[in-house]
Amino acid sequence: MAGADRPGADAQAVVALGGGHGLHASLSALRLLVDDLTVDQLTAIVTVADNGGSSGRLRAEFGVLPPGDLRMALAALCGEDRWDDTWAQVLQHRFAGEGEMRGHNLGNLLIVGLWEQLGDHVEALDWVGRLLAAKGRVLPMALVPMDIVAEVSGLTDDDPDQRRTIQGQVEVATTGGQIESIRLIPDNPPAAPDAVAALHDAEWVFLGPGSWFTSVLPHLMVQALREALVATSAKVVVVLNLAEQPGETTGFGPAEHLHVLLDHAPDLRIHTVLVDASIDGLDELHQVADKCGARVVVADVALDDGTPRHDPERLAAAYARVIEAG
Amino acid sequence: MAGADRPGADAQAVVALGGGHGLHASLSALRLLVDDLTVDQLTAIVTVADNGGSSGRLRAEFGVLPPGDLRMALAALCGEDRWDDTWAQVLQHRFAGEGEMRGHNLGNLLIVGLWEQLGDHVEALDWVGRLLAAKGRVLPMALVPMDIVAEVSGLTDDDPDQRRTIQGQVEVATTGGQIESIRLIPDNPPAAPDAVAALHDAEWVFLGPGSWFTSVLPHLMVQALREALVATSAKVVVVLNLAEQPGETTGFGPAEHLHVLLDHAPDLRIHTVLVDASIDGLDELHQVADKCGARVVVADVALDDGTPRHDPERLAAAYARVIEAG
Repeated sequence: MAGADRPGADAQAVVALGGGHGLHASLSALRLLVDDLTVDQLTAIVTVADNGGSSGRLRAEFGVLPPGDLRMALAALCGEDRWDDTWAQVLQHRFAGEGEMRGHNLGNLLIVGLWEQLGDHVEALDWVGRLLAAKGRVLPMALVPMDIVAEVSGLTDDDPDQRRTIQGQVEVATTGGQIESIRLIPDNPPAAPDAVAALHDAEWVFLGPGSWFTSVLPHLMVQALREALVATSAKVVVVLNLAEQPGETTGFGPAEHLHVLLDHAPDLRIHTVLVDASIDGLDELHQVADKCGARVVVADVALDDGTPRHDPERLAAAYARVIEAG
Repeated sequence: MAGADRPGADAQAVVALGGGHGLHASLSALRLLVDDLTVDQLTAIVTVADNGGSSGRLRAEFGVLPPGDLRMALAALCGEDRWDDTWAQVLQHRFAGEGEMRGHNLGNLLIVGLWEQLGDHVEALDWVGRLLAAKGRVLPMALVPMDIVAEVSGLTDDDPDQRRTIQGQVEVATTGGQIESIRLIPDNPPAAPDAVAALHDAEWVFLGPGSWFTSVLPHLMVQALREALVATSAKVVVVLNLAEQPGETTGFGPAEHLHVLLDHAPDLRIHTVLVDASIDGLDELHQVADKCGARVVVADVALDDGTPRHDPERLAAAYARVIEAG
């Protein structure tokens, strides 16, 4: 991998923004760049708008941040010895059975318990990070649980342009309509001060991949984060998905992904757009990128198995190329 | 405390048997003797017959050992720096709220998750012990969940001698009748080989304090443990409770406690009976102890607050006195 022989003197502070499996993939790549000293400070900022599954149940029961995406980010960054790896597996353990625990992740419960015990979201996540010897810090996008609200068209056969308002990450992610825009409730949530500081101090920010409307764009809707993203001298890299997601981005090519992102944060300066070589619609992407002054980097970043998932080593190599090109 | 100036050359291997709050008290004392080098190897062997509360729910849902008493024993042995102490508090954290998690202890969930993840009860407990830097090892009394069955009299006004069979730790502990005897289902459970080995290798075994029929006597009903207790060269110390427990031992003085213990394990050689100085009925206790060749040590081991709870430092001093007298 590029950077393997670097002394680390040029090592970069990096922030990764996202949620769910997309952020997990990005962090799985970035941890490799921590190992080879390309990156010396890594911070993940994670969406906290989930309202489904174990996270949704815990959020409803305790009024806490939904812990699932935070847990996945921590697991992605765990150290590699047996201690760290076992605790990461324990964190990811999902209870089966047929009873009240069914579907709960142990790590979600651990994070909620730590929150209740320590009374501080960020401190609790740092404790889990230390348990796993995590190669970076994991912070929530906001310090209160968020709800995603989408304006959706195409739900009515009679009038395809008629818009409806849909609320909740699960509901938005599975809508049969076309998402026109999203916003958050509450609309100006408190951000973690350390997340804002990390954005200001970073050399590079990686936004995406991930569920576009429900994991990636929400960061731009948190005023303190958007202001920090606009003000920071860090170079912002938008990492596009490998495929459209049924419901959330049906029919979306790479240009549309970039379009809606710019719609939601017109003042964001994008330095680089990273896209897999297999994606259709690169010409249109180049056109949109040119307009906003962004460079397009095309790379092989997908797994070979045909699923639309990123290969951590290939993604890491592409990230290193982006960083080295500066 | 006695032993504080010992070089540790005579340090002793100790096994503590029990369950619940009684074992927690005993281990809170023994950890102090680990600190001052009186004890160099400490093993707790813990009842796994609970069918109530969080433990009962998890046992019913997953068919695992009830984790609660194991969790309490681990928490009692946690190291003293902030890391160990915080994880011990997290382990003991009990979810409040009004939903499905209400009443579950986080540590119980962690232990069950580790069991499912690692597939080995003993290995999982060792992992938690390492997390807490525990000052001793915590092992289950048996490798399968147990049920306590009691023969109880005095439940029928017409015929006080009529016996009924009651099953379940909760049901036995709260019976309104007089418990005549207990047995276990299954009646010959597999013991943890390391628990049997610890009994054989020990210099001292502390049995009790704790709920007499449901936390202390069950150990004597596990054939492999009883055989090890009879065969070992370790000196067996029976630590009596500070008060009768309504339901389980209503009307029981210290002599009756020793009596029913001998009834359940007639071949057990008891070296010492440790009893608090405030207890009524010491004359009768001496008579029963004399008959079985046991020494009686009377000591101030209770807290000053009037509750029937052991003071860890006083109990440790009494244990040290017992060990030094040899």
